[in-house]
Amino acid sequence: MITVGIVGGTGYTGVELLRILAQHPEARVRAITSRKDAGTRVAQMFPSLRGHYDLTFSDPKDADLGRCDVVFFATPHGVAMAQAQELLGAGARIIDLAADFRLQDPALFERWYKMPHACPDLLREAVYGIPEINREAIRKARIIGNPGCYPTAVQLGFLPLIEAGLVDTRYLIADCKSGVSGAGRKAELTLAFAETSDNFAAYGVAGHRHLPEIVQGLNRASREPVRLAFTPHLTPIIRGILATLYAPLKNADIDLQALYEKRYAGEAFIDVMPAGSLPDTRSVRASNTLRIAVHRPPDSDLALVIAVEDNLVKGAAGQAVQNMNLMFGLPETVGLMAPPVLP
Amino acid sequence: MITVGIVGGTGYTGVELLRILAQHPEARVRAITSRKDAGTRVAQMFPSLRGHYDLTFSDPKDADLGRCDVVFFATPHGVAMAQAQELLGAGARIIDLAADFRLQDPALFERWYKMPHACPDLLREAVYGIPEINREAIRKARIIGNPGCYPTAVQLGFLPLIEAGLVDTRYLIADCKSGVSGAGRKAELTLAFAETSDNFAAYGVAGHRHLPEIVQGLNRASREPVRLAFTPHLTPIIRGILATLYAPLKNADIDLQALYEKRYAGEAFIDVMPAGSLPDTRSVRASNTLRIAVHRPPDSDLALVIAVEDNLVKGAAGQAVQNMNLMFGLPETVGLMAPPVLP
Amino acid sequence: MITVGIVGGTGYTGVELLRILAQHPEARVRAITSRKDAGTRVAQMFPSLRGHYDLTFSDPKDADLGRCDVVFFATPHGVAMAQAQELLGAGARIIDLAADFRLQDPALFERWYKMPHACPDLLREAVYGIPEINREAIRKARIIGNPGCYPTAVQLGFLPLIEAGLVDTRYLIADCKSGVSGAGRKAELTLAFAETSDNFAAYGVAGHRHLPEIVQGLNRASREPVRLAFTPHLTPIIRGILATLYAPLKNADIDLQALYEKRYAGEAFIDVMPAGSLPDTRSVRASNTLRIAVHRPPDSDLALVIAVEDNLVKGAAGQAVQNMNLMFGLPETVGLMAPPVLP
Amino acid sequence: MITVGIVGGTGYTGVELLRILAQHPEARVRAITSRKDAGTRVAQMFPSLRGHYDLTFSDPKDADLGRCDVVFFATPHGVAMAQAQELLGAGARIIDLAADFRLQDPALFERWYKMPHACPDLLREAVYGIPEINREAIRKARIIGNPGCYPTAVQLGFLPLIEAGLVDTRYLIADCKSGVSGAGRKAELTLAFAETSDNFAAYGVAGHRHLPEIVQGLNRASREPVRLAFTPHLTPIIRGILATLYAPLKNADIDLQALYEKRYAGEAFIDVMPAGSLPDTRSVRASNTLRIAVHRPPDSDLALVIAVEDNLVKGAAGQAVQNMNLMFGLPETVGLMAPPVLP
Repeated sequence: MITVGIVGGTGYTGVELLRILAQHPEARVRAITSRKDAGTRVAQMFPSLRGHYDLTFSDPKDADLGRCDVVFFATPHGVAMAQAQELLGAGARIIDLAADFRLQDPALFERWYKMPHACPDLLREAVYGIPEINREAIRKARIIGNPGCYPTAVQLGFLPLIEAGLVDTRYLIADCKSGVSGAGRKAELTLAFAETSDNFAAYGVAGHRHLPEIVQGLNRASREPVRLAFTPHLTPIIRGILATLYAPLKNADIDLQALYEKRYAGEAFIDVMPAGSLPDTRSVRASNTLRIAVHRPPDSDLALVIAVEDNLVKGAAGQAVQNMNLMFGLPETVGLMAPPVLP
Repeated sequence: MITVGIVGGTGYTGVELLRILAQHPEARVRAITSRKDAGTRVAQMFPSLRGHYDLTFSDPKDADLGRCDVVFFATPHGVAMAQAQELLGAGARIIDLAADFRLQDPALFERWYKMPHACPDLLREAVYGIPEINREAIRKARIIGNPGCYPTAVQLGFLPLIEAGLVDTRYLIADCKSGVSGAGRKAELTLAFAETSDNFAAYGVAGHRHLPEIVQGLNRASREPVRLAFTPHLTPIIRGILATLYAPLKNADIDLQALYEKRYAGEAFIDVMPAGSLPDTRSVRASNTLRIAVHRPPDSDLALVIAVEDNLVKGAAGQAVQNMNLMFGLPETVGLMAPPVLP
Repeated sequence: MITVGIVGGTGYTGVELLRILAQHPEARVRAITSRKDAGTRVAQMFPSLRGHYDLTFSDPKDADLGRCDVVFFATPHGVAMAQAQELLGAGARIIDLAADFRLQDPALFERWYKMPHACPDLLREAVYGIPEINREAIRKARIIGNPGCYPTAVQLGFLPLIEAGLVDTRYLIADCKSGVSGAGRKAELTLAFAETSDNFAAYGVAGHRHLPEIVQGLNRASREPVRLAFTPHLTPIIRGILATLYAPLKNADIDLQALYEKRYAGEAFIDVMPAGSLPDTRSVRASNTLRIAVHRPPDSDLALVIAVEDNLVKGAAGQAVQNMNLMFGLPETVGLMAPPVLP
Repeated sequence: MITVGIVGGTGYTGVELLRILAQHPEARVRAITSRKDAGTRVAQMFPSLRGHYDLTFSDPKDADLGRCDVVFFATPHGVAMAQAQELLGAGARIIDLAADFRLQDPALFERWYKMPHACPDLLREAVYGIPEINREAIRKARIIGNPGCYPTAVQLGFLPLIEAGLVDTRYLIADCKSGVSGAGRKAELTLAFAETSDNFAAYGVAGHRHLPEIVQGLNRASREPVRLAFTPHLTPIIRGILATLYAPLKNADIDLQALYEKRYAGEAFIDVMPAGSLPDTRSVRASNTLRIAVHRPPDSDLALVIAVEDNLVKGAAGQAVQNMNLMFGLPETVGLMAPPVLP
């Protein structure tokens, strides 16, 4: 039984970890911390968990997280890197759902997150947690930088094209649409129902923090430098990301369907849909599956890829548990096989 | 392993049965029928089930349902009663999610459903499938009339008050709000997004089919005849029913909280929330739990009960599986313990 | 031309006043204040008003509101009563969309709003602003206490029954459902899209501030004291209130339809719908109309009244302009006749 | 006073015409037809119009539409072209909100709409109804092909770039998101609330009928042939289109903001927003305004244009009335200046 600690479990990724781990036969949450809500019962804050957890939020300093086998950070950026050294020293492994261990270049981290990196040494050791790209490294990792929600969909969506060198990487476009939970569990006017419902808008066009993370990942797979226009939009749904990806094909004569099916053959959580499919976000709601469809728009030399995921599962907590399974030698799918919730 | 047949699995209760049974360790769906969609793969119609089912919809006459241990009818009213005799003869048991076996009086059935009852004998034998009321009878039943979504919430919400004879049963009010999936998976203008979204309305005020079913159930528990004003409303959510129940107290001096906690002590799927709670529908989304809170409005002699359930789970497919578990001697909770999906 | 001042125009009632007054041929907004946003252009905060207003939010102390003919307070409770004396002295009239001038009894105000009343003398003079009840007094008023959103719908819904003495006023029930804009334009977690969307819940059951306001109004019309159970619910729509009202009839033999049609004959903004109608909130969206339907639930001695309004229009800014029209001798409907927006 | 006929007024563009024309001081709807609903009062089908219209749907053959000054067709494709000759002969002018008079090439029409064109002669005469492009021709036109909803936003969004020859027209991308009302008022499962709510998907990727219309329009303005990838998506909002447009710049050194402001200077219904703006669909809800913002994504040679409109207003009925105003010598803005409805 893997003993689990969760730091900062009052946000949506935290409660999603709790939901997923409640079903996991080989893991048990032993402590969950929240400075602000220490002393509150988990099931009081989240009545959906009544009967599933008897835990109480504890103050970080009382939680003795070092005794856990693995500690998930479902915190704002900057928290995990401050505690990583101590936890590793105590023998725990770390899966950070924030950005502290995603960008390999500390200078890039500083530029986008406006804070110095607290442990560049550990950053070098950290593994970027997309199993379909880094599976072997994840198995051995002590620290996982769990990817952002957009980066998971965009990288896995573009990857086969880029690995195969089939597209002009100077003109990549990721037109992405996210549900509102992606912005976190926050008291902000811009996230209010009366502001976001029955409304649709782009945001972060001038530079979203997920842009450098995506470009880093695509550059690793690409022979030529990647330039990406990344346009996130907010759509009035709770969960779900749909990424519409465009890339100019160097050579029109290529079987994209076969390329994708081959690249992701055997992947339990990547579903390359039949040719002509148009995946919708609800088809992955509350599940760890990422569905992909590849298209060729009529009268065009572009590849069009549509990828959908649940931003809180494959885009966050589910992928984190997938990484945990790998790190502890379990089958990757343990605790993650519940079908999506539809309708 | 219980072998399961599903008749008419293309509606929301059908796909919800499939979702729940995909996780059930002791049951396996062996056949699913649809006259209209025979030959279509289940996972083609419901991409959310890709990777979970390899089944194909079969024509009812080819399905050999009599060889199943249990057959669920997720059909329009009138289908189950036409096939019940034959299936029982073949040794299968029946759980009807439609109304054929809910109303004990065939005349009442005819009046509300505008068709004669095909098998009044079997109707007499059928058990009304709310385990928290009829547990022992369900264990031995060959036919279950699985309750309607509203009737489950309203009966379980009023029951402790009525069993204890504490309220004036002539003035019961059930002001109920349902998500749109309760109306089924149908091509109807009144269910269209542009008609129901950002909109709220009552419907069925002149007489909803769930009214006689509720009254029948409450009368069974009541010493005095029950008169109920039942006002269903459509709220723009996908899943969920919230029932706001009002009943005049005969005697103001009663501990309602204790009454409800005692009545439902030990029930795995009924959560009597702490005094002062206000349950929301999402706290039970995609789960088999019914949450109840009891209140006393200020300056009033009324009892106010709020009950929430997922209309497709405790209000339909989940309760059906709960009944199946009982009928086959399994623990009632098998396959039904996944936490609600929140947010 | 009526010159208008608006205090606190950054909330939903403020922007709705601006929207309505932009169309009003006899009124011109001369100043709008916001302490926090002084210096910001109105059209920058609300891009929907680009091209319609050239105004800038000014600091309250610079706005010289006394020179306006009428000042609307779209502020939190407590602001209008602090400035009323000075504005009246300068010759302006006041329409307060908050609660300062709604409850005639200062002690009641203090109990529910947790602050002493700043000007009990003016409170005595203030007129409660429902034209369909107080038309003549409104014409002559210097101060209007503009009603709350729920109180408008509930009072106008119950009024004909109560004025006629037809119901047992000890057992009134108002089961109300409101869109989220009713809670204001606020950064609060409980109003966030991911919390309120696809969700339904009751709130304020232990005592909502609109309760004493409703009871005050109903008592004025009733020969016998009124006891009301008032249960507000939050439904995931932006605008709209639907009130489902129940009252035990003293005598079943009464033509409710005729009663309501007669009471509201000639009212431009009250639409008594044909017998059997079920009004929905979108049928009044963005309009000043309140639609009412009266029903008799089957097998019951209750009157059932359904009333819908747009909480920001007839429930707030529209009614305020209707009051302004009366106060300045204009036809009541000026600027308020745009049809509802559907779909 | 312009007398107006509406053919097929039971859909969303029909009811939107009624809503807009109810406010128009110079036009009066004299007849509205519906084969299926002849004899039904308009205000019965659309309670939102109670008190605004005393009209009854009439059978097309009884409506004597030729006596109207102008006839709007809010019908499926193919209806207007069958009646055009006769109506023109009787002296009426025609504004077709369907596609019969949009594509100048009859062969193209046949290919995309699967029916022969009934009157190629009239098609040659017809004017494509975007005033900001064809104002003078519209003034003199007898027949207007009122544009599709997507084509209005996409053409007006790309136009300044293309007219100025600044972009590589072989790689245009229009990633568009539409509210559900764009699909019409229909009983279709795919439009049901429980299917589209809390869900996001692309559709029509293999070839949407608005593609040839957009390409035709852009080619008229372009020196070089246009190739466009057009990806429509369905977002769970009622009204609104947001078009995210990408075009490779030939020369990075260009002031896009100035270009757009100059091109649309003086246009009452086109709002080029300040640099850095991110327009949302609600900022144009229920109004005839199209808002545009131009951006340069970081580290990219692309122009990024975001355009929002209300698909039922500037994308349909509002633009039709704008065209009517021009055809009858009225100021273009008459009846169209109500501010957007927000929230």
